[in-house]
Amino acid sequence: MTTTPRTRLSPDERRAQLLDLGVRLLATRSLDELSIDLLAEEAGISRGLLYHYFGNKRAFHEAVVRRAADDLIAQTAPPAEGELLDRVLASVRAYVDYVVANHEGYLSLVKGAAGGNETVREIYEETRAALADRVFLEQPQGEVVPDTPAHRLVVLGWTAMTEAVVLAWIADPAGVSRDDLITVLVLSLPALVEVTP
Amino acid sequence: MTTTPRTRLSPDERRAQLLDLGVRLLATRSLDELSIDLLAEEAGISRGLLYHYFGNKRAFHEAVVRRAADDLIAQTAPPAEGELLDRVLASVRAYVDYVVANHEGYLSLVKGAAGGNETVREIYEETRAALADRVFLEQPQGEVVPDTPAHRLVVLGWTAMTEAVVLAWIADPAGVSRDDLITVLVLSLPALVEVTP
Repeated sequence: MTTTPRTRLSPDERRAQLLDLGVRLLATRSLDELSIDLLAEEAGISRGLLYHYFGNKRAFHEAVVRRAADDLIAQTAPPAEGELLDRVLASVRAYVDYVVANHEGYLSLVKGAAGGNETVREIYEETRAALADRVFLEQPQGEVVPDTPAHRLVVLGWTAMTEAVVLAWIADPAGVSRDDLITVLVLSLPALVEVTP
Repeated sequence: MTTTPRTRLSPDERRAQLLDLGVRLLATRSLDELSIDLLAEEAGISRGLLYHYFGNKRAFHEAVVRRAADDLIAQTAPPAEGELLDRVLASVRAYVDYVVANHEGYLSLVKGAAGGNETVREIYEETRAALADRVFLEQPQGEVVPDTPAHRLVVLGWTAMTEAVVLAWIADPAGVSRDDLITVLVLSLPALVEVTP
């Protein structure tokens, strides 16, 4: 966060700052619990000003979810260089850290996506597609995973598996270490690609 | 369906028959679209009698979802004998056929589970656990998948992957054949077990 006095910020900067605050608040609570009142209190500004920035509660929620999704994509970006497995490792490690650190908000995204909020569902699916696309697009040492419809399905399955496994592990690690969790998720990708026709 | 005249059925048999009808109706529509009115019309009985059997709309929906989940578990039961891979193959094939034949109702179960209906969520999780348990419990030729917390996580991940891949394939097969779909899902299980620490 900048230490520049509030009055120096442009409207866009101020809006971005409020979204950052919304994302931080969402980390430890569900979307339903993230009210305009709470944000106003935490930001020390009026509800009226927040409505000015975001229109209504639904638009505010969608803006926060989109910002959170952008953060997730940015934070899990693999390094530009290196072996495919090392790059997947960096990405999965960052993903696990992100979901642990933003557990409530992440659950809320998953639930909102399945539960009928059409915009949240779109953001969720775009995010999952962006994470899956990396497997096909960012391969500096030549294509390792062939870009076929069957491989697309399998990589989608791997992202669904990764999400389910990480959420189950957070709910109950049952003695499985973070390193073992990450290792099995990383090695799963080439193992699944291997059995794809 | 029995051809015994309606008046000969016991209340339990009649309730079961109505649930079967509810499950059939759910195959091609969402839970929200499955109303007491529709069931009454299809069954040719009064709404009042349906309320007598099921109490209220929510209880009716939960009974239908539970019956549908029981059907899924029964229809995907692997054969008692055979190699693990052949038994997984039979199970996955039946699962794909079930989801294709009951697409709307299945989607509704997944959405209801994530979207905040606590009872549907419980039924969904019990069903997924029952499907996963088979991998550990039903191995007539000796244990092949070790029953460790890490393997439990991975098998859970495999069920999540299977669900996501089958739903994505139904939405857009993209030229992937049913046989290729089933093959990759079946071979994924030992491939994932192989990389589990």
